[in-house]
Amino acid sequence: MNVKEYMERVGRQARKASRVLARADTRSKNAALQAMADAIERDSDALIAANMEDLNAARKAGLAEALIDRLTLTGKTVRGMADGLRQIAALPDPVGEMDGFSYRPSGIQLGKMRVPLGVVGIIYEARPNVTADAAGLCLKSGNATILRGGSEAFHSNQAIARCVQEGLRAAGLPAEAVQVVETTDRAAVGELITLTEHVDVVVPRGGKGLIERISREARVPVIKHLDGNCHVYIDDTANPDKAFDIALNAKTHRYGTCNTMETLLVHAAFAEFILPRLAEAYWEKGVELRGCERTRAILGDRVVPATEDDWATEYLAPILAIRVVKDLDEAIEHINQFGSHHTDAIVSEDYGRTRRFLREVDSASVMVNASTRFADGFEYGLGAEIGISTDKIHARGPVGLEGLTSQKWIVLGDGQIRS
Amino acid sequence: MNVKEYMERVGRQARKASRVLARADTRSKNAALQAMADAIERDSDALIAANMEDLNAARKAGLAEALIDRLTLTGKTVRGMADGLRQIAALPDPVGEMDGFSYRPSGIQLGKMRVPLGVVGIIYEARPNVTADAAGLCLKSGNATILRGGSEAFHSNQAIARCVQEGLRAAGLPAEAVQVVETTDRAAVGELITLTEHVDVVVPRGGKGLIERISREARVPVIKHLDGNCHVYIDDTANPDKAFDIALNAKTHRYGTCNTMETLLVHAAFAEFILPRLAEAYWEKGVELRGCERTRAILGDRVVPATEDDWATEYLAPILAIRVVKDLDEAIEHINQFGSHHTDAIVSEDYGRTRRFLREVDSASVMVNASTRFADGFEYGLGAEIGISTDKIHARGPVGLEGLTSQKWIVLGDGQIRS
Repeated sequence: MNVKEYMERVGRQARKASRVLARADTRSKNAALQAMADAIERDSDALIAANMEDLNAARKAGLAEALIDRLTLTGKTVRGMADGLRQIAALPDPVGEMDGFSYRPSGIQLGKMRVPLGVVGIIYEARPNVTADAAGLCLKSGNATILRGGSEAFHSNQAIARCVQEGLRAAGLPAEAVQVVETTDRAAVGELITLTEHVDVVVPRGGKGLIERISREARVPVIKHLDGNCHVYIDDTANPDKAFDIALNAKTHRYGTCNTMETLLVHAAFAEFILPRLAEAYWEKGVELRGCERTRAILGDRVVPATEDDWATEYLAPILAIRVVKDLDEAIEHINQFGSHHTDAIVSEDYGRTRRFLREVDSASVMVNASTRFADGFEYGLGAEIGISTDKIHARGPVGLEGLTSQKWIVLGDGQIRS
Repeated sequence: MNVKEYMERVGRQARKASRVLARADTRSKNAALQAMADAIERDSDALIAANMEDLNAARKAGLAEALIDRLTLTGKTVRGMADGLRQIAALPDPVGEMDGFSYRPSGIQLGKMRVPLGVVGIIYEARPNVTADAAGLCLKSGNATILRGGSEAFHSNQAIARCVQEGLRAAGLPAEAVQVVETTDRAAVGELITLTEHVDVVVPRGGKGLIERISREARVPVIKHLDGNCHVYIDDTANPDKAFDIALNAKTHRYGTCNTMETLLVHAAFAEFILPRLAEAYWEKGVELRGCERTRAILGDRVVPATEDDWATEYLAPILAIRVVKDLDEAIEHINQFGSHHTDAIVSEDYGRTRRFLREVDSASVMVNASTRFADGFEYGLGAEIGISTDKIHARGPVGLEGLTSQKWIVLGDGQIRS
């Protein structure tokens, strides 16, 4: 197989299908999503069998247990995929939303219409459920999709693709609206991210190294997610119980997620009061603490001295950096300097300080008195998410249907010309 | 001067200033815009003198007359710059706009806040008025700016920069909020578009070659404007007078602008009726017509045979391609295939066809019964425009204040944690 020619053909087919999808009505798209869900549930055994092939190969290749875990399909995860597709069907269709219409002095009436981006490429690791999620979100938002999953999930993805394409056909939509790349050749990724004529945006999902490389080499726009170095700042005006609960939840609810807190900032006037109680709770859960000098003065030598590297690190592990700051300004400065502009929260009961925090912290999600763990597509009501963007242009934070669309200008006239 | 170090310093200063600007209140930003306008009007003679230096050098270097024209500052253009800044001051401040708040089942209240992008780099040709426009738009939208104008306008731009920075200081804002690059070394552009740490987006303005090169080499996101290959489609349900007026205005109001019609599409059942009258008007204005076979069958041999290249060409000249199409479908297909997704219009009195055209034509601006010439920032009420985007992600079409911002998620809680 000539990968260049193959990907060019995939791209051309996607572009053609995208035209049909852009004008597909909501009923057809929802029917396709329901039919995909039905096919996935019906073929549950076949999907699990295909997945078994991947799992056997992965075990032989000595894949790490965490990766095997993500690769594994069970009856429950298969039902989860089907449910996810049905949830997407239940979401409002963003395509064709019109707003902002008003008359201009020339007499034209100007507004905006929400439209699909066109063709979306998704590059992801060996997580078969992403195949169904991404296909569903792109379809509902009227985009054709080219999916390139991790080669370890090849058989699983092909099996899911068959269900997806069956659903498309059942609804009278072109099967090429969702194409799963049928080669594990890595060159396919290089082609996909440079197909400027046929691909409108690429969303890479995976480790930072992969995403950095794709961003560097891509010639099509990229919606990307790099670090999730999230902060909770406990102000001296915080309600102690809220502070305790949020700081504990943000770190220990799950360690490996991008919206997990990695550095805790505490106002100097509150640190002696709250830190001992918090430290005890963290240690009980087996969290290693790394602190600034003032933190260590309060909590003792069990706290590892933190370096500047700690402020900039996304641990994704039971490790927490703690810094005592002298005021809100120092907290905001720390977050904007060392953070990754992902998700940051303040705990405070002070109107003015919460307002400043919301405005001045330059992150995709900024929170008051809530755990950073809320920053995801489900909690935000987007349905599944295609990813969490740490970019500033286009979409920020959890990207759902709206992030997969853009708005065009609509001008309604009665024969107006410019003079 | 070490250009790499210099641009790195400029970037660092811009990033620092952007933090101040992001939290600057509307009153300060408007005061700065007014003070800039005042300084520019007061220094009108000095600006014109600085411009004279550039003009003398440009004439010596044999610059083309059209470029000299764009480079020239007069009392009127200087007043125009000042007026433009005052108009920007009068626009609503987009920063801090909040909308979409609603409660989620978890009890958090979720919405969005509009925020500056951060640092915006503008690369443009020798048009000194862009210096004031771009500085004003970026300031109002809360962004720090790095301006890199054409080297032929070097003295003019530096003189304008002094007025701009005086205005910033008068309002208590950092002068580094608007930096005009103080070197004509071309390497500065290469540095600017790769300063990923300090620059959030780059907007190149200029010829297609420049923009393609910058897009190719940039490592920061680019908001770009490539072709403006615009269409008017006259349906057989068109009102003949509107069709005539719009088709004439879209082509002949100005030839060199990106929203000028380059190809006219006419429904086969209407062509014999409208084309002779239109052709006469075009020829009277000295417009060369290039047509498909059916066009030539109606209008005769004075129409040059059109090739596929004509369908894809942005003439920017008194040349018009004409194609007779069999129906709306063929018109939409032609536009989506050969157009540049900039601005396209239908002339029709049919409800269903106009609705289909609006939805299915994949362009930044889609119009019914109005001249394509309306697609610009002033006519759309954006104030000055920073450019017209032909991209699909982030901003489409005329980019004003809103296109220079993004939205972050705001979460308001009362101590919510995830369970």
